[in-house]
Amino acid sequence: MHTDLVAALDIGGTKIAGALVDGDGSLLVRAQRPTPAREGAEAVMGAVDEVLGELMASPQWGKAGSVGIGSAGPVDAAAGTVSPVNVPGWRDFPLVERVHKTAGGLSVALVGDGVAMTAAEHWLGAARGYDNALCLVVSTGVGGGLVLGGTLRPGPSGNAGHIGHISVDLDGDPCPCGARGCVEGIASGPNIARRALENGWRPGPDGDETAAAVAVAACAGNPVAIASYERAAQALAAGIAATATLADLDIAVVGGGVAGAGDVLFVPLRRSLREYATLSYLRRLTVAPAVMGTDAGLVGAAAAAIALR
Amino acid sequence: MHTDLVAALDIGGTKIAGALVDGDGSLLVRAQRPTPAREGAEAVMGAVDEVLGELMASPQWGKAGSVGIGSAGPVDAAAGTVSPVNVPGWRDFPLVERVHKTAGGLSVALVGDGVAMTAAEHWLGAARGYDNALCLVVSTGVGGGLVLGGTLRPGPSGNAGHIGHISVDLDGDPCPCGARGCVEGIASGPNIARRALENGWRPGPDGDETAAAVAVAACAGNPVAIASYERAAQALAAGIAATATLADLDIAVVGGGVAGAGDVLFVPLRRSLREYATLSYLRRLTVAPAVMGTDAGLVGAAAAAIALR
Repeated sequence: MHTDLVAALDIGGTKIAGALVDGDGSLLVRAQRPTPAREGAEAVMGAVDEVLGELMASPQWGKAGSVGIGSAGPVDAAAGTVSPVNVPGWRDFPLVERVHKTAGGLSVALVGDGVAMTAAEHWLGAARGYDNALCLVVSTGVGGGLVLGGTLRPGPSGNAGHIGHISVDLDGDPCPCGARGCVEGIASGPNIARRALENGWRPGPDGDETAAAVAVAACAGNPVAIASYERAAQALAAGIAATATLADLDIAVVGGGVAGAGDVLFVPLRRSLREYATLSYLRRLTVAPAVMGTDAGLVGAAAAAIALR
Repeated sequence: MHTDLVAALDIGGTKIAGALVDGDGSLLVRAQRPTPAREGAEAVMGAVDEVLGELMASPQWGKAGSVGIGSAGPVDAAAGTVSPVNVPGWRDFPLVERVHKTAGGLSVALVGDGVAMTAAEHWLGAARGYDNALCLVVSTGVGGGLVLGGTLRPGPSGNAGHIGHISVDLDGDPCPCGARGCVEGIASGPNIARRALENGWRPGPDGDETAAAVAVAACAGNPVAIASYERAAQALAAGIAATATLADLDIAVVGGGVAGAGDVLFVPLRRSLREYATLSYLRRLTVAPAVMGTDAGLVGAAAAAIALR
């Protein structure tokens, strides 16, 4: 049926996943390796080559027409290089050229992982049918991507929509990025947990100090846990409202581990959004949870390769 | 030479200007009326009709192929209506339909005034040759517009790039729009003057309490005046950096009366921008003053009509 497959790579600080993806977004063949994140550049590339090698050994490989890569950022799509924060061995690493070579000369599209997730949600997920969308990943970090005028819009660098590092508190706490009051510094999972601990929340007997444990406490009515999620929701709302105001959006789709808190996050998020997204042209803005799950990176890398053909 | 002219309208709270604009952006015929901003909807439309009537009386009118309107916002390009804050008689006023009728059935393009200014700067001004640009008008209010991927991007509503009402201070002062800590509430001319007065700056014998007078004091070394411009620059920098981070920009062009302060604004603006635009893909971001002057609205309305054809 589908003669055109895309070889998709999802490159993160923990694992490197690959798949052959068909025109319906189904993953036909999969491969995966842990990311040797503390080793040198060639060791990390070796893991990528192993994943690609497994895909190339499939009888389906011959139908692969291109490669799509979604990588932890920052990426430089124009230069074809990546410098993932969590993979110190790769700085301006020429990933596109190396994958092009390993994959026997196929064309290679590179985007950031937030852009890849956005491509997946727009193709087959919660942003499907919306022409102007921001999709966010709220997890250890906060990333995102944009669809504008019906088209994935990664920008020349492949990083557009990177909402985690916009300042919503210009006098706020310093962020590792160098700025102050970034969305990520308030709304990421580790910051939700840190704020709860600082304000007196204590983990249960299992010692779980993650944002997920804070969400459980919030569900049970713990006011400190609730307040920490409300503050995260406020920062996300200010950031989403800013993006919607600037980009004239229809929808914001929120995924990532922190979105797994469900109503603990989404109820205050929708309430705060009404406070920050006030202009008449934002009345249509809706918020929805992401639906693509853990394969979003692979499906999205394939979608990006198709969108950017 | 140019068989195609555009009839441009620039509609603000003070004046309604019109022109026939050629393919080089030259204004061949002009007309203008004061905006009867305190009168009813039909009185304001009457002034628009008079401006159009003057243009239609020109022997050049026959070459006009379309009408471009840049209007004080908010506008609703999809519905063809406008609701300018400073023209209370117009709420969801069907301006596109009315101009279409007056202008003998020509096609009509509508964008916000910030988008129009952006179209002008991208066509013939400081953003020329840049594919990804934010242009700002910093004046009584703060507006803006976006060029993405080489193309004017007004968004479905015609308001994209409206940087004045993004929050850069999520716990900050309430804004008339309903949100808190908006860029406009910190960086507009009236707010620069208000902050200087609140902190002890006093006008000279002429009693001039405007941001322009504060700029003169800042030039003369008055620390309160300097600090007020620095705070405005900080808010603009946070907003520009947010936009650049989200939209992967090459340049920000700053115009409007407040930009007339020159180095008093631009030196702290560039310094603050280095503090907020920290990600590697923003290294290329530059800031430049607008160059199109008072005709930017008309030239931009024409450019928008051409871009959106």
